[in-house]
Amino acid sequence: MTSTLGAPQGVAETEKAGLAVRYKQVRRASEEICHPLAIEDYGVQGMANTSPPRWHLAHTTWFFETFLLKPYLPRYTAFHPQFESLFNSYYETLGAPFSRPLRGVLSRPTTDEIYSYRAYVDTALMELIGSVRGNDWENVAARITLGCHHEEQHQELLLTDIKYNFSLNPLCPAYRTDLRQTPHEKTLALDWMPHPGGIYEIGAKETSFSFDNERPRHRIYLGPYTLASRLVTNGEYLEFITAGGYQRAELWLADGWHTVRGHHWQAPLYWQCIEGTWWQFTLGGMQPIIENAPVCHISYYEADAYARFRDARLPTEQEWEVSAALQPAQSAAENFRESDFLHPQPTPRQGQIMQMFGDVWEWTCSAYAPYPGYHAPAGALGEYNGKFMANQMVLRGGSCVTPTGHVGVAYRNFFYPHDRWQFSGIRLANHL
Amino acid sequence: MTSTLGAPQGVAETEKAGLAVRYKQVRRASEEICHPLAIEDYGVQGMANTSPPRWHLAHTTWFFETFLLKPYLPRYTAFHPQFESLFNSYYETLGAPFSRPLRGVLSRPTTDEIYSYRAYVDTALMELIGSVRGNDWENVAARITLGCHHEEQHQELLLTDIKYNFSLNPLCPAYRTDLRQTPHEKTLALDWMPHPGGIYEIGAKETSFSFDNERPRHRIYLGPYTLASRLVTNGEYLEFITAGGYQRAELWLADGWHTVRGHHWQAPLYWQCIEGTWWQFTLGGMQPIIENAPVCHISYYEADAYARFRDARLPTEQEWEVSAALQPAQSAAENFRESDFLHPQPTPRQGQIMQMFGDVWEWTCSAYAPYPGYHAPAGALGEYNGKFMANQMVLRGGSCVTPTGHVGVAYRNFFYPHDRWQFSGIRLANHL
Amino acid sequence: MTSTLGAPQGVAETEKAGLAVRYKQVRRASEEICHPLAIEDYGVQGMANTSPPRWHLAHTTWFFETFLLKPYLPRYTAFHPQFESLFNSYYETLGAPFSRPLRGVLSRPTTDEIYSYRAYVDTALMELIGSVRGNDWENVAARITLGCHHEEQHQELLLTDIKYNFSLNPLCPAYRTDLRQTPHEKTLALDWMPHPGGIYEIGAKETSFSFDNERPRHRIYLGPYTLASRLVTNGEYLEFITAGGYQRAELWLADGWHTVRGHHWQAPLYWQCIEGTWWQFTLGGMQPIIENAPVCHISYYEADAYARFRDARLPTEQEWEVSAALQPAQSAAENFRESDFLHPQPTPRQGQIMQMFGDVWEWTCSAYAPYPGYHAPAGALGEYNGKFMANQMVLRGGSCVTPTGHVGVAYRNFFYPHDRWQFSGIRLANHL
Amino acid sequence: MTSTLGAPQGVAETEKAGLAVRYKQVRRASEEICHPLAIEDYGVQGMANTSPPRWHLAHTTWFFETFLLKPYLPRYTAFHPQFESLFNSYYETLGAPFSRPLRGVLSRPTTDEIYSYRAYVDTALMELIGSVRGNDWENVAARITLGCHHEEQHQELLLTDIKYNFSLNPLCPAYRTDLRQTPHEKTLALDWMPHPGGIYEIGAKETSFSFDNERPRHRIYLGPYTLASRLVTNGEYLEFITAGGYQRAELWLADGWHTVRGHHWQAPLYWQCIEGTWWQFTLGGMQPIIENAPVCHISYYEADAYARFRDARLPTEQEWEVSAALQPAQSAAENFRESDFLHPQPTPRQGQIMQMFGDVWEWTCSAYAPYPGYHAPAGALGEYNGKFMANQMVLRGGSCVTPTGHVGVAYRNFFYPHDRWQFSGIRLANHL
Repeated sequence: MTSTLGAPQGVAETEKAGLAVRYKQVRRASEEICHPLAIEDYGVQGMANTSPPRWHLAHTTWFFETFLLKPYLPRYTAFHPQFESLFNSYYETLGAPFSRPLRGVLSRPTTDEIYSYRAYVDTALMELIGSVRGNDWENVAARITLGCHHEEQHQELLLTDIKYNFSLNPLCPAYRTDLRQTPHEKTLALDWMPHPGGIYEIGAKETSFSFDNERPRHRIYLGPYTLASRLVTNGEYLEFITAGGYQRAELWLADGWHTVRGHHWQAPLYWQCIEGTWWQFTLGGMQPIIENAPVCHISYYEADAYARFRDARLPTEQEWEVSAALQPAQSAAENFRESDFLHPQPTPRQGQIMQMFGDVWEWTCSAYAPYPGYHAPAGALGEYNGKFMANQMVLRGGSCVTPTGHVGVAYRNFFYPHDRWQFSGIRLANHL
Repeated sequence: MTSTLGAPQGVAETEKAGLAVRYKQVRRASEEICHPLAIEDYGVQGMANTSPPRWHLAHTTWFFETFLLKPYLPRYTAFHPQFESLFNSYYETLGAPFSRPLRGVLSRPTTDEIYSYRAYVDTALMELIGSVRGNDWENVAARITLGCHHEEQHQELLLTDIKYNFSLNPLCPAYRTDLRQTPHEKTLALDWMPHPGGIYEIGAKETSFSFDNERPRHRIYLGPYTLASRLVTNGEYLEFITAGGYQRAELWLADGWHTVRGHHWQAPLYWQCIEGTWWQFTLGGMQPIIENAPVCHISYYEADAYARFRDARLPTEQEWEVSAALQPAQSAAENFRESDFLHPQPTPRQGQIMQMFGDVWEWTCSAYAPYPGYHAPAGALGEYNGKFMANQMVLRGGSCVTPTGHVGVAYRNFFYPHDRWQFSGIRLANHL
Repeated sequence: MTSTLGAPQGVAETEKAGLAVRYKQVRRASEEICHPLAIEDYGVQGMANTSPPRWHLAHTTWFFETFLLKPYLPRYTAFHPQFESLFNSYYETLGAPFSRPLRGVLSRPTTDEIYSYRAYVDTALMELIGSVRGNDWENVAARITLGCHHEEQHQELLLTDIKYNFSLNPLCPAYRTDLRQTPHEKTLALDWMPHPGGIYEIGAKETSFSFDNERPRHRIYLGPYTLASRLVTNGEYLEFITAGGYQRAELWLADGWHTVRGHHWQAPLYWQCIEGTWWQFTLGGMQPIIENAPVCHISYYEADAYARFRDARLPTEQEWEVSAALQPAQSAAENFRESDFLHPQPTPRQGQIMQMFGDVWEWTCSAYAPYPGYHAPAGALGEYNGKFMANQMVLRGGSCVTPTGHVGVAYRNFFYPHDRWQFSGIRLANHL
Repeated sequence: MTSTLGAPQGVAETEKAGLAVRYKQVRRASEEICHPLAIEDYGVQGMANTSPPRWHLAHTTWFFETFLLKPYLPRYTAFHPQFESLFNSYYETLGAPFSRPLRGVLSRPTTDEIYSYRAYVDTALMELIGSVRGNDWENVAARITLGCHHEEQHQELLLTDIKYNFSLNPLCPAYRTDLRQTPHEKTLALDWMPHPGGIYEIGAKETSFSFDNERPRHRIYLGPYTLASRLVTNGEYLEFITAGGYQRAELWLADGWHTVRGHHWQAPLYWQCIEGTWWQFTLGGMQPIIENAPVCHISYYEADAYARFRDARLPTEQEWEVSAALQPAQSAAENFRESDFLHPQPTPRQGQIMQMFGDVWEWTCSAYAPYPGYHAPAGALGEYNGKFMANQMVLRGGSCVTPTGHVGVAYRNFFYPHDRWQFSGIRLANHL
């Protein structure tokens, strides 16, 4: 949780200026994401797992207030005495958080008041950066950096939650009508890229920011394996549907089969078959399925069943990371939020490992667990990642709504195997 | 459902003018109720049973569009093709209504668009009143009258739903801060007013508007009974709480006991004991309990248990109606919405039957059932009342948020025995 | 609850002898009902609402032990100290009963031990009858009488619960293979029998045993009505199914429609369509549907929807009782348990009101409520009937598994509107 | 799933004789476990996760009938045509199994009939062993071996399910009253046994039977770690309880905390605090807690929280296996079913790693997942283990109700993190 970044006294001014710029950019980006919204859209909570946009804006602010301003800025006065519990997400150490499934009923504070809250905290944060001295700087800088990464995570959630909320409305409103459109690319073959295995190190290096769950860097052993050169496409996934994939128990994990039957799943989330044609709900409204674009909004169960259907499997997170670390930079080809598609795109190249970053989060077959030697940080920040290390699966690589630069080789995302509202998809692997 | 009011051809113009005035007044009143709201408040749905204010505004408009404009106004174009299903509450005959518990996710149409929808329909309705001819007039007039009563019912729900929504917010926002305050009255004794029973007629007379469920007027036989002169007060109800009423199984119906245990009820809805003092959430925010004001937000189970605690019972709806019909006009003392308390008030007089109208809906011990000879109207309007005649109990007399004039002697309201978010209270009765 | 039967001192010996005979007959009948069971069958609880046969045998014994032996037999030692709570059904006044849905896990006491418990209590009860003196006699006699009626109610439940339990087993075991078979009768027309209405008295007379819920006898007023001469048949009900009755929302109460959709009901309980032919599970195993036999295992919602389908309604319990009181004795034609069909039978006669008693319990449209002036008895026996007077509907007339003589004109049975595992059916009524 | 054991033609007779002996021993042991039961106990299903003893006896028989007799014994006639679906546990490939939570309602076939079914299949199985020829032998032998191991697994479940069933009965019946009692040993200190880590192989070797989920044997890398010399005791766990362990959110995984709150857990399953003293329900009835015996009936969440309370962690399954493989034989000290305690016992020795086998299943912090290169066998037997590889955690080492010889170094058991009805306990580990 705490950054590994240290700040020797005396040289901090440039660092301070840099951090202030970074802070402002991140904060502005959250608000820009909300610009296309009507006031009414700010309050919607489509399911217990999602949060109203307004809540995201307030909670990320609460993070800076709680972990920076209250402990480190002398004479700081809280914007509102009850926001501490109202916008606490899940930090039990800080007292009972407000009931998660009821976030949608909080019409007050209003959106305007939340923007005021943001401005108030931003001002105080600048004051803190300007005034903090000596020994505190290292902690303050680390926590601001963490707070920026935290806010970037919520920027992604803002987009996935808005998409989910809007999808429930029969009017199918578009979040934006000016998004970039998928160019017509020809479908490129899926190649299998072998790797010999061996002893490797994975986990975050000490040279830049990382989340606690990426540490400590440690040694692992891998047997030989092979990785698909690109993501599974909608067209390929349609073959699974057409072949009765959702009706064939033998393809599914037992818990997956139970989920499929219980929820009557017949296709990925947001897909709809209208008069024989498949459509999907996107951040740009209803769109026809594009065959060579990556399939997304897939649960782990579906990813796993699809892999079995192809006599393949999903990669472990170790395999994924080792392979990802070997790739040359492909930033030109990476589809992150700033690409402004807000939707996964067909791969532009063949014959090498592509699409590792951006487009869709890739389900790995690794359960989310602590790395050897992991210790959650002391205090409330220790709840950030550690307490979720059960029942969830690791996803890697970021998606088309992740901010550029947020996700690296060692980044570990995690969701329950039945979750589908993230931009999650499939890369196949196999043993050699 | 259809009014009993007929309109002979030729004399309709005055009637038309009168109805137009009535229509405009009712429509305006709904919007005035919403004036104190922030845009954010319009979208909140605190539980499946309540609806967002925005939805009430749209649904009441939908009623006029669906039952008046579409069938009777030639060349009428619907404001939006999907509003028919979006704002259908429960009329299965008209196609599947949008899922009730999800009304809170409908951030679109926005509040502004819903006000435009209202204006559009209002204009068309005026056009209909002006242009309707001959045989249609009687039906149109009856349906407009019904639509106005329907909207008045939703005005009451607007206030009870807003109260419920706000109560879930730890900030305890006040809907209004300028409400009239309860004057300090001394507590007046509860007298028992005997009635000899006999053969009576109950149900709506043919001389003015009535809902279908109030008809047909019919003969009943009553044994002798006695009725409390006033409503049960908070002070009296506190004695029940203090005497362990919520812990004594022998006072409760079996289903009531199950509900009390399951929901951990210890007091009426909205009551909170803060450092030894009882407070309640009101439309004016948190207020201390006033001992001589009527208890409210009580379920049928609590009303029934309280009556048993007092060796009494609740009145039947027949007893209530027969007694109510005998009372002299008390409109000066009646606390309806226009009194602008929006909260039940202590009775001002002793020695006669008081508070039959306004203040709180009075639970009767009568299950909601069709009157002898009742037939639901044909078509979708037949779903208005008839299909709810199971598992609910009748309440009589209106409350402090009911519009003046909406509720008469024969009016039958109905809720499930566990419902508490209406302004519902207790009048005791007994056998002689 | 307490019998109205008094026993003047001195003349009690004959009365005692009579009561002892009655007691033994009732007790023996319960055990005879269980003779066809395997030991394994004694323990099954098919759903929370049903009880294992073993439990019925023990609970009825508990009733005599708790309400007779412990209070009235000096120096009586309980058979087992924990049976008081183990076999308490729902008397909260006596301490927390064992969790109802878990009755099926009580493999101990074993069936043998429960038969020993029965014998032990029977011996002590005979001792009580022999030894009780003076003032106690009246109470003791009343409670023994009540206990016998109580056990007869459980005899009926034994059969309905066994039927339900067996129906869940894909082997479709027959409870008995030697039951009487339905003779081939021709279908008799349904006649409408008018009644002019007027002032009547209903409720139990003081001349023989009655349950507290049948009292006090009281005056009522009825408008004119008409009653079907016989029960609705399977053939008639099939027309409702064939006409899409289960798919047409407009025929159903709102709560009924919700139940039908939620449980995917398509036909009465126990019906199964096998290769185009309708079969039903009976106490004699799977049998083809007999068209002119009364439909049974119908919920209130289905009875109500069927009536609406026929432009009719269900009778009120007052109408039912007034008409039933006017019928000549038909005991030759009454199909109670002793007829040994254990299944409803076609009516043997036309042109008069038939099948009022036996065959199936007839749903009335009356909610189960206290009669005017009703008071539940003091103490635990007050829980027998009174606390269930909410959310349930009254059924009248007994069924083919009710013991002969158990049910009279004033008898009130009650179940929830969704309950189907009793032998419940339909008699139509209408207004004139 | 299929054994790796091959049988060259010609030399099979000794092997056949050996397998026949093994088969008979296993089959007899299941029935001996059931001897102390009353017929009534055979049918109880205390929760959806447990099965009635009768069902275990039938299902293990079904396994031999389905996977051996039907495919390999010419002209074999099934004992009963419907047993195929009735006693199918979860093999979807074989058609829809009978609903699991309803197993307790199957009073038929009776216990006697199930014993006949067992005898019938045993006879046929002996015939199969005698008659099978040539190429089939290898498959048949492998499947019989698997069937024997399968039945041993169900022997353990028989005991854990009986314990659970009996625990729900307020009479607290003892399964057996003649079990061996825990000797009074003094409490031995917990030592930390370090291991340097390195490259190792884990997984089943090819030399004897193994389940498919133990294969393939594969290479892993371990960092240095340390393992507790013995299991956590009741006394140590009581310190966790006394220190408020069940009330301190910071000790728990988020899902664990949710479970603890939702189920109001305050202690291990079967523990009860009676007048200040802790007791536990055992297969010998209620017994006081013995401080130096291992704690058991602990969920993964509790094991994990306890470890955090001690600044330790649970071992990975790789660490466990590597350490277990290094231990000298300790069979004299191992407490498996045949020790006849049927309860975990204090460790008899200090200064070395003890209690790795028997006593309690040890939760590892490894999610249950396929080994690298794992493929589920083709056909229905492929459902045996593979489809459960999600959401469950691995446990190692067997318990006091596991048959001796059933569990080896590579054996992987798995349960959901909230499961508590197995004899599951805690061994601590830590990083060096």
